[in-house]
Amino acid sequence: VGTDSAWTWAYFFAGDADAVRALAADRKYSLTRYRVERVAAVRGDAGVSLDEGATLVRLEVAARLPSSSEKAGPRLLFHGLPQHLQYTTHAQRDDLAKRSRAEVPASADTVAVIIPIRKSAAWWALPHDDRQAHFRSQDGRPGHTAIGAEYADRIYRKLYHSRYAAEAGHDFITYFEFRRAHEADFRGLLASLRDTEKNPEWGHVDREYEIWMTKVE
Amino acid sequence: VGTDSAWTWAYFFAGDADAVRALAADRKYSLTRYRVERVAAVRGDAGVSLDEGATLVRLEVAARLPSSSEKAGPRLLFHGLPQHLQYTTHAQRDDLAKRSRAEVPASADTVAVIIPIRKSAAWWALPHDDRQAHFRSQDGRPGHTAIGAEYADRIYRKLYHSRYAAEAGHDFITYFEFRRAHEADFRGLLASLRDTEKNPEWGHVDREYEIWMTKVE
Repeated sequence: VGTDSAWTWAYFFAGDADAVRALAADRKYSLTRYRVERVAAVRGDAGVSLDEGATLVRLEVAARLPSSSEKAGPRLLFHGLPQHLQYTTHAQRDDLAKRSRAEVPASADTVAVIIPIRKSAAWWALPHDDRQAHFRSQDGRPGHTAIGAEYADRIYRKLYHSRYAAEAGHDFITYFEFRRAHEADFRGLLASLRDTEKNPEWGHVDREYEIWMTKVE
Repeated sequence: VGTDSAWTWAYFFAGDADAVRALAADRKYSLTRYRVERVAAVRGDAGVSLDEGATLVRLEVAARLPSSSEKAGPRLLFHGLPQHLQYTTHAQRDDLAKRSRAEVPASADTVAVIIPIRKSAAWWALPHDDRQAHFRSQDGRPGHTAIGAEYADRIYRKLYHSRYAAEAGHDFITYFEFRRAHEADFRGLLASLRDTEKNPEWGHVDREYEIWMTKVE
């Protein structure tokens, strides 16, 4: 079994940035360092426990790390990877490309939030058109895509998939960055996405928790 | 990182069935044994080399094997896993459920064919609606779904995903079983799927090879 660098894995560790850097060895990588503010359960238990002030490190690397990395050295919290678009149409993608903000440079003023999410087995058993309907606007409900688009100019977002790839207690690692001044916007985004009157998709979420951080490097 | 048995991994090995069985250890598993007839390149090189008469073993197991299994013992050819439906609609799924034949019992008369397939980077970069259009009937072309449905009563099929999950030289492991009497039907299915006038999707396949076998156990 060879390796293929067509994609980038993201590993999230608790612990020392230099020790994480060492795990990348000779792989191409980028590293981001965060200060943990708090962990909050939303649905089900939080899947990780982290103290305020702890260091969290994201390692994005062009090849999968050996599974021994999960056992020794810095504590691996979870990992995943971006994948192809599963619900976004051509028109939606073009619209989002125009309005989406870029990553936010690290600073004391830069908030990053990781939200691991798991969906129910019943959700995954749905055929594609039934799942996609939850992302569309219909019957007076905006749906996931339209809700997100409204905030795309202020909230940077990235989606990592874990289901199948990582066997964790969640299917996705959703990731957000924004300036502290936009925290109320971000809370508004979460409130709308979690309102099943506006976004019926959220009724299929059976586990979700938040890791609030400052992006320091 | 915990384990989650919501899905089944499939590992394909060259070598002794008992040695493969030992790798399953205390995991729930099912094992299928095949006699290799021939390997044929279709697009690009064949990704494996197997002699006529060699034993190929499929191990389906409820949890991922440790990556050490890839290095010692029987030779791992590739692995993957079934995933949620990415293009099939509710109506198509219901139709296929009615007409699809079950797995074929092992016998000297049972042919199994594994076809690993890779699609181009350009394919994966397409938004979902552009990819899905390739599966639909339109402009007088039947497309992938209708072509396959025509053979579903004679050809048992299973789709394992490798992309993201396994970092192999292919994105999918497609798997088929049929009675030897239906070999001409199977060749007709392949010919139609590979005719880009009938199935434009195949224009995005950039690697494909076949492993023809007899299902012996």
